[in-house]
Amino acid sequence: MNEILRPFDIDFDLTTGLSRLKKASKRYLSNMADMFYDTEKAGDILKNEDPLIYEFYEMGIPETVGDIAFGTSIVYPGKIGNEYFMTKGHFHTVLETAEVYFCIKGKGYMLMETPEGQWDAQEFAPGKAVYVPKRWAHRSINVSPTEPLITFFAFRADAGHDYGTIETKGFRKLIVEKDGRPVVIDNPRWS
Amino acid sequence: MNEILRPFDIDFDLTTGLSRLKKASKRYLSNMADMFYDTEKAGDILKNEDPLIYEFYEMGIPETVGDIAFGTSIVYPGKIGNEYFMTKGHFHTVLETAEVYFCIKGKGYMLMETPEGQWDAQEFAPGKAVYVPKRWAHRSINVSPTEPLITFFAFRADAGHDYGTIETKGFRKLIVEKDGRPVVIDNPRWS
Ligand SMILES: [Mn+2]
Ligand SMILES: [Mn+2]
Repeated sequence: MNEILRPFDIDFDLTTGLSRLKKASKRYLSNMADMFYDTEKAGDILKNEDPLIYEFYEMGIPETVGDIAFGTSIVYPGKIGNEYFMTKGHFHTVLETAEVYFCIKGKGYMLMETPEGQWDAQEFAPGKAVYVPKRWAHRSINVSPTEPLITFFAFRADAGHDYGTIETKGFRKLIVEKDGRPVVIDNPRWS
Repeated sequence: MNEILRPFDIDFDLTTGLSRLKKASKRYLSNMADMFYDTEKAGDILKNEDPLIYEFYEMGIPETVGDIAFGTSIVYPGKIGNEYFMTKGHFHTVLETAEVYFCIKGKGYMLMETPEGQWDAQEFAPGKAVYVPKRWAHRSINVSPTEPLITFFAFRADAGHDYGTIETKGFRKLIVEKDGRPVVIDNPRWS
């Protein structure tokens, strides 16, 4: 072990999820327009504005098997058509690595699936921790009309992110609003 | 990978740190009387009562290199003599594994040291995350006179706990109250 990492702390605001000390990575609609199933609606919105869908922190923890990467994720309230604002979602490059998410504010779901076709959705609410086992792709979805969905996440720092699989194939399921409430539907564009 | 672990969630109360679904592991003064430096004071207290010092959750996550163990830790307010209530503290058995603690309530410190004799203390306050790098023993200390210190922790699930080294040798440093505020002092009983 050559890298020298001293203990450190970092401040997050429990109300906004944001840190004063560090810059968040931001994902706007233009960064993920193809990931919402109503691509026409996404295109319409982009003619006038480019809403911030979510942001999250990368701490720059050394990517070793013994380190833990962590940070907060903030998914903003909103919809593209009837599909809620969400993260891109990803598998871990080291597929056999898990992750835990601890919700501190908001209301939503963690949508998950395996390469073998299993799927699952677990609810986020303040104080709820969701465990994403090894092999499960995961996407956070904010179903509140007003509040950000704020989670604190931790995973093995060498896990890596495979965004490409989801960008190409999509998730098998979507969570959309129907009659004012969230429902899970088959992804009409899943391939 | 043979164990089959489905996604799951678990509820913690953000005000108490406790879960309604799961039983916490409790540590009373009688479980750790020798760990406070004023053992005489600890003995006096134990004649009349056995205060709950801290509790924490173990989720029963499979202890593999790809899983993440997590839970909340609640250290109650109080002192033994002038030494604040604290956790036993431990090294990880797999020494080259890190841990992250995310404070959701209270005020305190994470006291840390390496086998080589380095030490460090990082402050806990709501929203602060403390990173415990590989090789660092760690102990949570509550310096609030009234509030519990509540943290959410995550570490590699196969890390294991070596409590024995600290039970035998102690930490090199202690955090005690002096003139109404916390100060770091040398541990008079460190061996
Ligand atoms: Mn992940
Ligand atoms: Mn630990």
